Amino acid sequence: MIPKGYQDLLTSTALAQVATLGSQGEPQSTPVWIGWDGDYIRFSQTKRQQKYRNLRRDPRIALSIVDLHNPYRYLEVRGVAVAFEDDPERAFVDSMARKYLGVERYPWHQEGDEHVTIVVLPQHTSQLG
Amino acid sequence: MIPKGYQDLLTSTALAQVATLGSQGEPQSTPVWIGWDGDYIRFSQTKRQQKYRNLRRDPRIALSIVDLHNPYRYLEVRGVAVAFEDDPERAFVDSMARKYLGVERYPWHQEGDEHVTIVVLPQHTSQLG
Repeated sequence: MIPKGYQDLLTSTALAQVATLGSQGEPQSTPVWIGWDGDYIRFSQTKRQQKYRNLRRDPRIALSIVDLHNPYRYLEVRGVAVAFEDDPERAFVDSMARKYLGVERYPWHQEGDEHVTIVVLPQHTSQLG
Repeated sequence: MIPKGYQDLLTSTALAQVATLGSQGEPQSTPVWIGWDGDYIRFSQTKRQQKYRNLRRDPRIALSIVDLHNPYRYLEVRGVAVAFEDDPERAFVDSMARKYLGVERYPWHQEGDEHVTIVVLPQHTSQLG
């Protein structure tokens, strides 16, 4: 699904800009950390966060990732959130802290946060550069 | 409308990630160059490009801009495209080439491209960092 020449963007430490739909169907866009296993893109949210609530309502999503070393090379992935996996031990969000921050544990956990791993199935891509 | 402490992101050379709605209402996300005059955000498209066609159909838009020097500082602007200004002399797209590339003229113009400046009215922001 993801062109071979662009998979490096998914495993690099570039942020992904995630577009989801608000309650009136309006677009929203914010950056997230992402993981990639060759089939699915994953990112972490807490249940209070807007992107989680948006995707529960409408699972359609787009992510765009710009090359850290070349702003004119990017990958856009469109797809759907196909699973919402509870992450009570913070295994996934900790793995993202290792990838992006180089630390063992996610440092911004707060009492009461309910972490969820959102699993995205890529369905379409566009790319440049 | 834009918090004072975040206006620098609009005038920096950080790309904006633009989220628009496709023909089925699905989110799309791609990077663009932006200009900011204190009231409106502007960016350039050609009439063939998807974001132009999307915004003609549904003017709702979100832009997110991440600080080039701090990936945990960003601004999201949601709003609507309020005008589509023809740019036949390429004055606006040339100004973007000066801002982002440091060259006088937009270097990627192709015969037949109809440049349009999309004018976005900010209506809501979120920010971090």
